[in-house]
Amino acid sequence: MNAIPSASAIRTVHVPLGERAYDILIGPGLIARAGAEIATRLKGRKAAVITDENVAPLYLKALVASLDEAGIASAEVVLPAGEKTKSFEHLITACDKVLEARVERNDYVIALGGGVIGDLSGFAAGIVRRGVRFVQVPTSLLSQVDSSVGGKTGINSRHGKNLIGVFHQPDLVLADTDVLNSLSAREFRAGYAEVAKYGLIDKPDFFAWLEANWKAVFTGGSARIEAIAASCQAKADVVVADERENGQRALLNLGHTFGHALEAATAYDSSRLVHGEGVSIGMVLAHEFSARMNLASPDDARRVERHLKEVGLPTRMSDIPGDLPPAETLMDAIAQDKKVKSGKLTFILTRGVGQSFVADDVPASEVISFLREKHA
Amino acid sequence: MNAIPSASAIRTVHVPLGERAYDILIGPGLIARAGAEIATRLKGRKAAVITDENVAPLYLKALVASLDEAGIASAEVVLPAGEKTKSFEHLITACDKVLEARVERNDYVIALGGGVIGDLSGFAAGIVRRGVRFVQVPTSLLSQVDSSVGGKTGINSRHGKNLIGVFHQPDLVLADTDVLNSLSAREFRAGYAEVAKYGLIDKPDFFAWLEANWKAVFTGGSARIEAIAASCQAKADVVVADERENGQRALLNLGHTFGHALEAATAYDSSRLVHGEGVSIGMVLAHEFSARMNLASPDDARRVERHLKEVGLPTRMSDIPGDLPPAETLMDAIAQDKKVKSGKLTFILTRGVGQSFVADDVPASEVISFLREKHA
Ligand SMILES: NC(=O)c1ccc[n+]([C@@H]2O[C@H](COP(=O)([O-])OP(=O)(O)OC[C@H]3O[C@@H](n4cnc5c(N)ncnc54)[C@H](O)[C@@H]3O)[C@@H](O)[C@H]2O)c1
Ligand SMILES: NC(=O)c1ccc[n+]([C@@H]2O[C@H](COP(=O)([O-])OP(=O)(O)OC[C@H]3O[C@@H](n4cnc5c(N)ncnc54)[C@H](O)[C@@H]3O)[C@@H](O)[C@H]2O)c1
Ligand SMILES: [Zn+2]
Ligand SMILES: [Zn+2]
Repeated sequence: MNAIPSASAIRTVHVPLGERAYDILIGPGLIARAGAEIATRLKGRKAAVITDENVAPLYLKALVASLDEAGIASAEVVLPAGEKTKSFEHLITACDKVLEARVERNDYVIALGGGVIGDLSGFAAGIVRRGVRFVQVPTSLLSQVDSSVGGKTGINSRHGKNLIGVFHQPDLVLADTDVLNSLSAREFRAGYAEVAKYGLIDKPDFFAWLEANWKAVFTGGSARIEAIAASCQAKADVVVADERENGQRALLNLGHTFGHALEAATAYDSSRLVHGEGVSIGMVLAHEFSARMNLASPDDARRVERHLKEVGLPTRMSDIPGDLPPAETLMDAIAQDKKVKSGKLTFILTRGVGQSFVADDVPASEVISFLREKHA
Repeated sequence: MNAIPSASAIRTVHVPLGERAYDILIGPGLIARAGAEIATRLKGRKAAVITDENVAPLYLKALVASLDEAGIASAEVVLPAGEKTKSFEHLITACDKVLEARVERNDYVIALGGGVIGDLSGFAAGIVRRGVRFVQVPTSLLSQVDSSVGGKTGINSRHGKNLIGVFHQPDLVLADTDVLNSLSAREFRAGYAEVAKYGLIDKPDFFAWLEANWKAVFTGGSARIEAIAASCQAKADVVVADERENGQRALLNLGHTFGHALEAATAYDSSRLVHGEGVSIGMVLAHEFSARMNLASPDDARRVERHLKEVGLPTRMSDIPGDLPPAETLMDAIAQDKKVKSGKLTFILTRGVGQSFVADDVPASEVISFLREKHA
């Protein structure tokens, strides 16, 4: 049996959202400590743990044992892995199992998995009995630094991604940094793109620190914990300023407008492109486009590309295996995502590394010529 | 063509919920005025109108014409009538149509119908794009005085009624009192049980007024508008004090614990019992049980029964056509609904007409003996 690491290695990020405030704990061994952490913080003694078929064999037993030891009875729900699980079909299953487990308003749904499981489980927790408590145990890097924080939950519709859901803040987030060791290198890198994003939004020092320390982040240990804690703190700051995404929260979409268009262009085929890879290419494009608009120096774009390439992320459209549709099709996807108002688009642009801003008057014509150039 | 009544006949009840505050307008001709009222109050110019197969042929055309005239484009969604429509199946259809209509966060879903359509549409409005705006045009008496106010939305699960949903306050409620003329007498009476409920909770004067004026309420005109406005005001007061039902909002369940048990006992067969009828019998039982517990005088129970009987509502279990299961089965349904904590139940009891309170220590053993007596 592994020794449970002491609590001292654990970092806490507090998300001060008034009556919806919560803590994010980040560090090693948190799955083994989950029961104890939950039992001291929440009243309920019943849980439904929702996870996927990849994560269940790795961590479900340990989590349930830890809950058990703390006197928390739990039901287990194992869903298929992958983006397709974010559907009404699986939501119905999840809700049904949560009710079957007689989870009441002070009991909780626990999401054990990546962003897919987190988004689906959070939605179920938000609608069963018009809201029960919710604990996130994110197991992918992306979910630890991004999707588990902020309360956005949801599923996909045939009309688009994440179009059905609720805001439902978790009551606790337990990010066990050890579990990232079983994540594929590709998924780890994809999550890393979102880590780098926080530096590029408004933390130039953090980006510089990542340029110097990324290898240690990939290896594990305290640099990894630092990077995750800094990312959670960055996301928490934005969420607290704009919980329901009426304004500044849009900054979190740096690189995502281009990225989403590329995901759509590859039909969400994860063998070709996963979300974080799209974001990586999208962030380079956002910096290049900002340079083209004379907002930033081309050196910044080059610097961003250099770092993302170094960690092994794709940075150009031509890095995506297979053919891409023409620039016009990408533009259509962007217009669908963003709503064009009299030929103008809202975009996250930048004045340089760590100096992003929301621009709401970007001419669609400039975007399309830029895409034509880049595509060629 | 009918002349549109002047705005002067219209009563407004304001629900002061901070950034979720809204108005309830009550009076004649409001469907014809809907477009104008919405256009002056809300920004969006796109709507999805959700209704049912009974209400559509009566009022959908008039509502859409009124929206049209005000420059509001609308899509129409007609669902089957009846409680079974409160299901995931129809929720999925509703969400899909709302997205197809390209309803954005400032546009709205409009519920045109009774409580079934209101609950389902409000839920769809609460989860599409994590919340779009919502307008209620309640057409049954029950929905005008109860379900359209307060923001509870949802669907049923095989584990029970209303177990899946969200709190999503409407942005505007338009209660057109003319449309109640096409409601069946039985549905009108059922809704009236909820009107009487507000008097019995904490408004003895209102109950006395109803005893004197109920015929005018049934006929229509200003007494009906008064009764609906007083009911909406009463519900709004409770909702404002306890938006998410952590305490006093439970008073609204007067008569509902027994009522729900009877609905379950008749397998929700509306040919035998509709919700308001269950509430009517339940309110009499709650007063009788309170008398039995020496909390209230038996005279109050007799007075309540006299009035409800006079308007034509059932008041005793024996009024329900067909056989009822034994008292033990009713008790099981109550225990399921309420959660028994060490032999004690939470119940809404009363010290007399207009003096209800939340009792959280009602011995289950007393309830079962009471039911045995009443059942015989
Ligand atoms: N709610 C938000 O604010 C938000 C933000 C960003 C992304 N998202 C959503 O997150 C989802 C993507 O999240 P993701 O990248 O975590 O995807 P994911 O949940 O599909 O996880 C990626 C893969 O890694 C596996 N996995 C997870 N943890 C593992 C571990 N420790 N060891 C081995 N395998 C593991 C999963 O089974 C899956 O196959 C998308 O649906 C996206 O829309 C939501
Ligand atoms: N959200 C809440 O706070 C709340 C409160 C109380 C009840 N409810 C819910 O409300 C529902 C019951 O509402 P209801 O009694 O309005 O039922 P309903 O919506 O089924 O309407 C009753 C019947 O009357 C018909 N109808 C409605 N308006 C009409 C009109 N003007 N003319 C002719 N026919 C008309 C309907 O088509 C239906 O057949 C239940 O599902 C209950 O759970 C919700
Ligand atoms: Zn992302
Ligand atoms: Zn009721």
